[in-house]
Amino acid sequence: TPSDREGHSGTQSSHRLLAYSDALISIIATVMILPVAHTKMENNEELRESVQLLLTTKIAVYLMTFLIVTVAWAAHIRLFQVIVRIDDCLALLNLACMMLITFLPYTFSLMAAFPENILGLLLFCGCVMVMGVIQSGIVLYAFSRPFLLNEQIQISENQTFYKHHILKVIMRVPLMCFFASIFSFIFFQLSYVLLAIVIFLPYISQSLKWCRSKAIGQEQESPDSMLFYTYLPNEPLSKDRVEAFSDGVYAIVATLLILDICEDNVPDPAVVQKQFAGSLVAALRVYGPEYLAYFGSFATVGLLWFAHHSLFLHVTKTTRFMGLLNTFSLACVGGLPLAYQLTHEFPPDSRNELEAIQISCVIIFFAGGFQLAIWVVALHGERETLHPYVRYGGREHAFMFAKLSLYPCVALGTFFLTCVLSRFSAPIFHLMEITVPFAFLVLRLLVRVGLASLRMIFCPDR
Amino acid sequence: TPSDREGHSGTQSSHRLLAYSDALISIIATVMILPVAHTKMENNEELRESVQLLLTTKIAVYLMTFLIVTVAWAAHIRLFQVIVRIDDCLALLNLACMMLITFLPYTFSLMAAFPENILGLLLFCGCVMVMGVIQSGIVLYAFSRPFLLNEQIQISENQTFYKHHILKVIMRVPLMCFFASIFSFIFFQLSYVLLAIVIFLPYISQSLKWCRSKAIGQEQESPDSMLFYTYLPNEPLSKDRVEAFSDGVYAIVATLLILDICEDNVPDPAVVQKQFAGSLVAALRVYGPEYLAYFGSFATVGLLWFAHHSLFLHVTKTTRFMGLLNTFSLACVGGLPLAYQLTHEFPPDSRNELEAIQISCVIIFFAGGFQLAIWVVALHGERETLHPYVRYGGREHAFMFAKLSLYPCVALGTFFLTCVLSRFSAPIFHLMEITVPFAFLVLRLLVRVGLASLRMIFCPDR
Repeated sequence: TPSDREGHSGTQSSHRLLAYSDALISIIATVMILPVAHTKMENNEELRESVQLLLTTKIAVYLMTFLIVTVAWAAHIRLFQVIVRIDDCLALLNLACMMLITFLPYTFSLMAAFPENILGLLLFCGCVMVMGVIQSGIVLYAFSRPFLLNEQIQISENQTFYKHHILKVIMRVPLMCFFASIFSFIFFQLSYVLLAIVIFLPYISQSLKWCRSKAIGQEQESPDSMLFYTYLPNEPLSKDRVEAFSDGVYAIVATLLILDICEDNVPDPAVVQKQFAGSLVAALRVYGPEYLAYFGSFATVGLLWFAHHSLFLHVTKTTRFMGLLNTFSLACVGGLPLAYQLTHEFPPDSRNELEAIQISCVIIFFAGGFQLAIWVVALHGERETLHPYVRYGGREHAFMFAKLSLYPCVALGTFFLTCVLSRFSAPIFHLMEITVPFAFLVLRLLVRVGLASLRMIFCPDR
Repeated sequence: TPSDREGHSGTQSSHRLLAYSDALISIIATVMILPVAHTKMENNEELRESVQLLLTTKIAVYLMTFLIVTVAWAAHIRLFQVIVRIDDCLALLNLACMMLITFLPYTFSLMAAFPENILGLLLFCGCVMVMGVIQSGIVLYAFSRPFLLNEQIQISENQTFYKHHILKVIMRVPLMCFFASIFSFIFFQLSYVLLAIVIFLPYISQSLKWCRSKAIGQEQESPDSMLFYTYLPNEPLSKDRVEAFSDGVYAIVATLLILDICEDNVPDPAVVQKQFAGSLVAALRVYGPEYLAYFGSFATVGLLWFAHHSLFLHVTKTTRFMGLLNTFSLACVGGLPLAYQLTHEFPPDSRNELEAIQISCVIIFFAGGFQLAIWVVALHGERETLHPYVRYGGREHAFMFAKLSLYPCVALGTFFLTCVLSRFSAPIFHLMEITVPFAFLVLRLLVRVGLASLRMIFCPDR
């Protein structure tokens, strides 16, 4: 039995280690939204200007951190698709790696705050290089104990080839960081270019390869024996881990607002006594919009999680390209606390409030839109990636499409409504927040009625 | 196949819904440590006094929130051990339930800040009552579609009896909250007593029953057909969910300090230019202790997670009593960010610093001690709860014991060392932080040497 084997060889299933790593990485990926969300807006200045100021620095830091951390996470997935069992030593090495990953956002915000000082750059490169050394140590350790490896590699004849290929792929990034840190002493602008290449190279090469494979039709480049570390867009990405990472992001985003509320919105008893004549209800009424923002944000994040959950329930295999789209969707979800913070920060009926609501609609639209894109990509290779009943013509196909397109459509509709009826923007937005959960409940009914009426109109004789 | 069945009946495996719920609940349980950790200490006043002030209010709020939320979580586990498959409607009802659970900490901090105002109490009772209604709705919905239920209940003859029993158990708490909210208008002190009974009743009755069962030896009270909702200490508690909840707590605690560092410790470029003559290194040196605190806290939390992971790897069945001890251990782990915040907040060689370090040692001691207690309880019923190779006399028995007792022993040793050598307290503490990870690495070797030498001393002829 597996448990006997565990006891015998001292190895363990890696499932829980990976779940813990996913939880840590997802929290760290979304953490840089906090400095953005906590930036206090001035009411007398225009939102447009302050948002532009934000966009240039803090939002950029948030998005870059999210991308960097997800690149590190993708490398972690790839590594632990090869190493499927762990022992105590690997678990401790992995924890050391996690400690360095959680430190990356800080080095990155130093770089953003002091672009001309090379300290942030050196810290970042140092972290990445140490991580590279630890990961190489993990690979060497695992290949010296082959029972820790994936079965396909265990039985493969060219194990040494695999080891060298993986080490080469792993050391590529630390090596570029090493050159970047040397160049930083001579001409630091070049270092940033090198780092940008490091970060975006997988994304760029991935999309280029995808376009080329679609254009030429040639899909398989690597030999059949190579299943991992191919960097092809259809390379499998552990579905469990994509789900665990997404759950972590959705959970931390859903609770970020209540963290703030618990810390900041308990009034001081002395203030209540003095300013509100001892009436707690009157004192709490000041925070009213924040509670509304909390419930609205929780409902939106919860329902986007629900759509994501429904989508991945019907997906049988996750590819790297789908993982990339999922990352973009999650990065938008991470921006939701900012959007909701903005909507309750401005006085009602101001121009700022209108724009804050429109920004919220745009973020929700893209968060839902990328989910829809995942489904479209999955449909493209439906034989491999989808359960039969959601493929074209499947019984659940129309229903899934409706579920995933509900949020993008509603967000788009709300956006245009607030443009036209700019005086009623806040009520329209709150109406959207309240109606969408019920829309999800009656969606199955709506789809059935819609399909029936379409059939009535176009093929009345059938 | 299961996927066909999913497509056919419109039901889904509940695994991911539960993982997401666990992530949400674990974040919410630990969130009230933030107001405690962010309380600024005055250096001129004695730590003892300020800690006593803290102890009476904020730490109490944190611990009470942790207990309340884990009671709600235990109820959630119990419910979804009966309902093992979900559909869209149940998923949405569960999300509504989660929204109310995440609001509980806020109502509780209102109660703590304004004990004489009944608003917090009413909000709390209102949330609990609505949650009770939603949970009853979930039960009624699931029993009307028996294919959603646990197989043992599906094939059982007295399904109606089960339904009534579960509804009765679920409605007990909201009913008491209903009475508490009515009494709050007449004599509000009584309401607090009622609420305390509600929260602690399961814990008290559980320990009483355990003591009684040990004293009399009579263990089975309910008929054999009753497997769930028995409230016996040996009632099984889903092991996956205990692990997922613990992972969430460890992950959020490990990252709480870096959240603060990312937000607060990026110096302002203007300040660096003016106060530090443009030297970023000099500016960052001010934050030095905070980086040290971060790495120390991450290492300690990571290694406590590692011990927890090793422990639960060898556990085959989790009982309610083990879950209770796990809750206590996690509550201590949640206090670690506070301890580390304290250790770097006071000037070196002050009396305050010494006491902060001693508080850290006490927290680490109890966090590790409760883990050890879980193992002792598991050993007590080892046939049911442990893998053969870690039972008494098993090959891994001594090693597991050493792993779990390492942190309590080291914390205790550090505590007494800092008492004796009070001038060297900080170096001793940092030495402990650095040596413990290496101790884990060489532990297997140490245990083998220790066992061999013990054998040499006591049975030299064998």
